[in-house]
Amino acid sequence: MIKKDTKFLIVGLGLLGGSYALGLKKEGYTVYGIARRQETIDYALNHGFIDEGQTEVDEFVSKADVVVFGLYPTTMVDWVKKYKHLFKENVLITDVSGVKTNIVDVVQEELKDLPVEFISCHPMAGRETNGIEYANTDMFMKANFIITPTKRNTIEAVEFCHDLAYTLHFNHISVLSCERHDRMIAFLSQLTHVIAVSLMNTHDNSQLVEYTGDSFRDLTRIAQINENMWTELFLLNKEILLDETNQFIDSISHFRDALQNEDKDEMKRLFIQSTQRRKLFNKNDGKNK
Amino acid sequence: MIKKDTKFLIVGLGLLGGSYALGLKKEGYTVYGIARRQETIDYALNHGFIDEGQTEVDEFVSKADVVVFGLYPTTMVDWVKKYKHLFKENVLITDVSGVKTNIVDVVQEELKDLPVEFISCHPMAGRETNGIEYANTDMFMKANFIITPTKRNTIEAVEFCHDLAYTLHFNHISVLSCERHDRMIAFLSQLTHVIAVSLMNTHDNSQLVEYTGDSFRDLTRIAQINENMWTELFLLNKEILLDETNQFIDSISHFRDALQNEDKDEMKRLFIQSTQRRKLFNKNDGKNK
Repeated sequence: MIKKDTKFLIVGLGLLGGSYALGLKKEGYTVYGIARRQETIDYALNHGFIDEGQTEVDEFVSKADVVVFGLYPTTMVDWVKKYKHLFKENVLITDVSGVKTNIVDVVQEELKDLPVEFISCHPMAGRETNGIEYANTDMFMKANFIITPTKRNTIEAVEFCHDLAYTLHFNHISVLSCERHDRMIAFLSQLTHVIAVSLMNTHDNSQLVEYTGDSFRDLTRIAQINENMWTELFLLNKEILLDETNQFIDSISHFRDALQNEDKDEMKRLFIQSTQRRKLFNKNDGKNK
Repeated sequence: MIKKDTKFLIVGLGLLGGSYALGLKKEGYTVYGIARRQETIDYALNHGFIDEGQTEVDEFVSKADVVVFGLYPTTMVDWVKKYKHLFKENVLITDVSGVKTNIVDVVQEELKDLPVEFISCHPMAGRETNGIEYANTDMFMKANFIITPTKRNTIEAVEFCHDLAYTLHFNHISVLSCERHDRMIAFLSQLTHVIAVSLMNTHDNSQLVEYTGDSFRDLTRIAQINENMWTELFLLNKEILLDETNQFIDSISHFRDALQNEDKDEMKRLFIQSTQRRKLFNKNDGKNK
């Protein structure tokens, strides 16, 4: 497990960074914080999320044994370029980025001549809210935690991330390559957001609010989306997400054609196939337990 | 309110028909049942859903003051054509059909020379299960009930349906024309099913089960679907559903193009629009309360 005297620095105290800080403090670790706004630092101090915090980026960084970036991916890249000289020797650096392509390689390349290690992770938690005010550790308890090592990473770093996820009480911990991670996230998360957003944008539907059932609300909940973060995440994963989106458009166009042609057999075959495939996912389906 | 000595006949004791029977019995009404299989009748009798029941369609039908069809829409049309001579004079007939076009007109035309009234309703309850074993009245308590009268219906019949929905403890009761109902249901229910089914059918995704988060499960829960019922419902509402599906395909293709062109401003505009539109639906959103 993680040594009890390990000192963590969380850079970026948003929903995820704040929740990491809270979770680590709960487990008895020393936690430092850096945020852009003094109000965020004050909130984190007042709520016991951190032991010390500040808005300036200076030698304060060198107090940490482990640095966790809770920043947008491209903001993290810029930060590392600007401040990498401040890291303590042998520091372990990790992050929470939702996309790995064009991020992990860039950061590792930037740090390659320093005695530090960057290993990327994706805690698949957090939904329609932003900001430290919504930070909580409950969201980890049914979430997946994915470690995405490259050939530049050590086994020890992978094990540390595993222990970190365990310490924060994530539900399921796994290891994927960056490429497989980005393909998985494109289908399971990004495409579902594209669909929900596009459904809400199909036409004005405000007059339908009073008739809405659970299925429409379930499907469109994620159409409430942070436009800056998701634009960045989508563009970082552009080629894979385009491919998944085009495959989905092919699939729904095929269904449309079956309906147009009144091809009952094909419609039924598609319903049976979707039912069978979806049943596999039920074992993790809270509502159907 | 509905007179306490009113005798109901439920034709078709599936999930909805069975739940109607249970709900009416709970409120003290006399309930008869007709089902295709004797086992269904036995189940309904043993569980106190009905007072009397049988599989034959004969003068038993004439005992009822109110008949509720819990059948598939086209099965109901055939039933009415075959057995309409069995209805008692002044009987009120209603149903649970999810689509109104090509059904309500046909039934009313069929009955136009008889001293009976058919008024169509859509209880928007019931999800991924079928059969009387899943019958329950809890599902009514957060569901919408829609009455779809035509110019052939009386005010008294509309009021009766309102009282029926109230008696069964539906959450929200409203009145729509058949055309507006079918347009609403095409967008809010049928299109969401087309999307969920098409997403599951995009490609084999069984290897992704372990990484699935809530958003994917929420979006695809309704991909578990009764192929016979939904093929029938979709074909009955074919033209409207095709139009809604094509509008959605246009919307998602537009998003795809913005991503392809790396048009950040348009992507953000689409995210902001979907967020604003979806917020309207939050007031009824159990999870966000």
